[in-house]
Amino acid sequence: MDRPPLMRQLAFLVEADRLKEILRQTPIASGARRENSAEHSWHLALMASVLTSYAAEPVDLLRVLRMLLIHDVIEIDAGDTFAFDQGANATKQEREERAADRLFGMLPPGQDTEFRALWDQIEAGTTPESRYANALDRLQPLLLNAESGGGSWRTHGISRAQVLQRMDPIRTALPELWPGVMAIVDWACGEHHLLD
Amino acid sequence: MDRPPLMRQLAFLVEADRLKEILRQTPIASGARRENSAEHSWHLALMASVLTSYAAEPVDLLRVLRMLLIHDVIEIDAGDTFAFDQGANATKQEREERAADRLFGMLPPGQDTEFRALWDQIEAGTTPESRYANALDRLQPLLLNAESGGGSWRTHGISRAQVLQRMDPIRTALPELWPGVMAIVDWACGEHHLLD
Repeated sequence: MDRPPLMRQLAFLVEADRLKEILRQTPIASGARRENSAEHSWHLALMASVLTSYAAEPVDLLRVLRMLLIHDVIEIDAGDTFAFDQGANATKQEREERAADRLFGMLPPGQDTEFRALWDQIEAGTTPESRYANALDRLQPLLLNAESGGGSWRTHGISRAQVLQRMDPIRTALPELWPGVMAIVDWACGEHHLLD
Repeated sequence: MDRPPLMRQLAFLVEADRLKEILRQTPIASGARRENSAEHSWHLALMASVLTSYAAEPVDLLRVLRMLLIHDVIEIDAGDTFAFDQGANATKQEREERAADRLFGMLPPGQDTEFRALWDQIEAGTTPESRYANALDRLQPLLLNAESGGGSWRTHGISRAQVLQRMDPIRTALPELWPGVMAIVDWACGEHHLLD
């Protein structure tokens, strides 16, 4: 465990590559295939960089980006847990905490706790940065499901009520985007992409 | 062209999704498939966040991350140009500038020029941030080619001299990593992943 810091950092960065093989339920916008969690993380970070001015509270964008870049790394061990899978969500926290221990523990002393704190912060959702980041993490699959003609909503028979509950953090963290979310949900119900 | 800013931003973010379908020559670390430019961008941004202390000059990490998140978006129109393809590299700049005009031009006034300036800066490579970002963009495929047992070096019969020339920005921008780069190149030649 006393490998040089650089060796530990490179080992972590190579291990992180496995996030490219973790598939989410949501398709990419073209509908051609399911999205993986690495490209999803890129998309969220890009959204954070473009939509900063809509955050309801002032945010430290650097902290938001660093959070979003690592927020799904724990899925390498814990897998992606589908938002609407109640059974899997019951064990999610315990699985993900164990994964965070192992994965962020690969980093050198000091950096391990720094990255773990970023992950704990986005999970807790109690800062302006984590509220903004979490709202983007709800908005992004909404855009992809709408764009791809139903995506994971259709595959899993999801309802308007389920989606509105899932999207609720957007209402307070990105209030100017809420009317657009409602319009997309109404449209998706009309198109039978969502159960009304 | 006078759509509300938010509509333009969401249209840009949905268009950007197509970067997930642009394939690079380099495989992911497991060797299972080629990497796409969206997950590549995530990996670079994560590396930038982990390796900041090795940058030869002090860098504004927020600027580095914002650059890396958009640096390949132009490939949606211009395609990925393989580093060792001389023919394609002759037309690269013109193709990419046209792509930058169209893609960053989707953003609202003010933000379009801001994002274009970030892209111009990473392309020019004349600031500490762009030198650090470009060095990471060389290091990442080296790690993936080594990890996957040769990757695009083997596919295209690349030589030690070509790789060392390509990696040269690391020597000055990430000097503490240079001995590691040399060790990987020596090892890859020994394994016949690279032509000696």
